[in-house]
Amino acid sequence: MSPGWLCIAGLGPGDEAMRTPEVAQALDQATDVVGYIPYVARVAPREGLRLHPSDNRQEIARAQAALAMAAAGRRVVVVSSGDPGVFAMASAVFEALEAAPAWQQLDIRVLPGITAMLAAAARAGAPLGHDFCAINLSDNLKPAATIEARVRAAAGADFAMAFYNPRSASRPDGFARILALLREACEPQRLLVFARAVGTPEERLRTVTLAEARPEMADMRTVVLVGNAATRRVGRFVYTPRAAL
Amino acid sequence: MSPGWLCIAGLGPGDEAMRTPEVAQALDQATDVVGYIPYVARVAPREGLRLHPSDNRQEIARAQAALAMAAAGRRVVVVSSGDPGVFAMASAVFEALEAAPAWQQLDIRVLPGITAMLAAAARAGAPLGHDFCAINLSDNLKPAATIEARVRAAAGADFAMAFYNPRSASRPDGFARILALLREACEPQRLLVFARAVGTPEERLRTVTLAEARPEMADMRTVVLVGNAATRRVGRFVYTPRAAL
Repeated sequence: MSPGWLCIAGLGPGDEAMRTPEVAQALDQATDVVGYIPYVARVAPREGLRLHPSDNRQEIARAQAALAMAAAGRRVVVVSSGDPGVFAMASAVFEALEAAPAWQQLDIRVLPGITAMLAAAARAGAPLGHDFCAINLSDNLKPAATIEARVRAAAGADFAMAFYNPRSASRPDGFARILALLREACEPQRLLVFARAVGTPEERLRTVTLAEARPEMADMRTVVLVGNAATRRVGRFVYTPRAAL
Repeated sequence: MSPGWLCIAGLGPGDEAMRTPEVAQALDQATDVVGYIPYVARVAPREGLRLHPSDNRQEIARAQAALAMAAAGRRVVVVSSGDPGVFAMASAVFEALEAAPAWQQLDIRVLPGITAMLAAAARAGAPLGHDFCAINLSDNLKPAATIEARVRAAAGADFAMAFYNPRSASRPDGFARILALLREACEPQRLLVFARAVGTPEERLRTVTLAEARPEMADMRTVVLVGNAATRRVGRFVYTPRAAL
C-alpha cells in the first residue's frame, strides 16, 4: 500500500485560470476529494477518483473522515474555495488533528489559493493596497459583539477591510448593524466594493459610497471591501494609495 | 499595430507551482515585463520579450513607463512578488494613472497572486484561520506612529496579524519597538511565525513565543505572523481555531 497523504487545498475563487499548478497537481494525484458540495463539484471527475461532497457546517466530521482516509493509505485532497487558511477548512482539519494525536504524524500539507478578497480587490483595482483587515461576519462561531468590536477597532485605526460571509438567510440583520456602525465611524463618501461570485459566470462588482450602501447589496456569495479614508476612484477603478493620510 | 494592454500581475511567493495559469499566460503573451530587479529575474527570457528591471523605490517611474508602453501598443506585464494588490505595484500604477487621465481608457487588468502571508500561513498550518490584519511595517510611506497605532488596535481587538517588510537595514529599530508594543498588549506565550523566503530554496520557518521573539529573527525577506490569543500548536503545525475565545 502506498503511503497516504492529506492536502488541504485552495481552489481559488472559481475560474481555473486562478487555480495554482500545485493544487491542480494534487488533484491529479488524489484518490479522494473531500469538501463542501459546491466546491467538490468544481473538481473534474475521473476514473479512480472518489468524490466525497458534504454539507455546510459538517467541517469537523469532514476533516475527521479525510484524516481517517489518509491514515488508511489514501491520497486525500480537502478542497476549499479561495484559500484554505482563510475562513475555510485548514483550521477545521487542525482542530480535528488536535483531538487525534495518532494522526499527527501523517503527511499533511496546506496548499494556498487565491482568496476571495484578493480576487475581488484585483477586479476592482487596488482597494487593499494599504494596511487592511479580513473579518468573517458570520456569527456561527463567535459572538456578534466580538465582530462589532473588531470592525470598530479597524475603522478607528483606518484599516481598509474585507468582510467574508457578510449576510446569509439565517442572519439577515447582522450586516445592517455593521453598516450602521461604519456610518458612525466613517465619512459618508467612504467607498465600498460589493464583489459577488468573482471568477464565475455570475460575477458582479458594484462600487458605492457608504451613504449609498444597503444590506441587500450583499449575500452569501459576496465579499465586501471597505476602503480606508484615502481610498478613491480613478477612472473605472478603485484604489488605496500606498501612503497613509 | 495590435492594441496594447497592461497587466499588473502577481508572481506568487517564488515557486512557479504557486503561480496562477492566468499570470503565466499573460507573461507568455507579453512583449514587455517591468518590475523590481529580483522579480523580473523570475521571468524566463525568450525571443521577443523585453525585460525592464528597475530598482526599489522607483515604483511611480516604473508605473509611468509601463503605462506609456501600453499606450504605444505594447503588451506589458508589471510583475510583483506575491499579490500585486498587497503592498506592491497595483497601487503605484493607479497613482500614476490618476495623474494621467489620457491613459485611463487603456486595457488594464490586475491578476492576483498568492501573497506572502498566505503562503507562509499555509506552510505553518493555519495561523490566519480567524480574523486577521495585514500591516506593512515599512515607514517609507507612513509615520511610525500610524504603524504603532494599528498594531495596538489589532492586538486590542485580538486580531491575528501579518507583518510585511518587518525590518530592513535602513530601519533596524522599528521592529524592536513593535515587539515591545506586542509584549505590552499580549501574553508572553503568544505564538509568532517568522517565515523567510517561502517558496524559494532559502525558505525557513521558525515558530517562537512572544517571550522568545528577537528583532534579528526578521529581515527584508521575512513575513511575520502573530497569532491571536487562541492560536496554538498541534504537532508540528500552528493554527488558530475558527471560534473566537
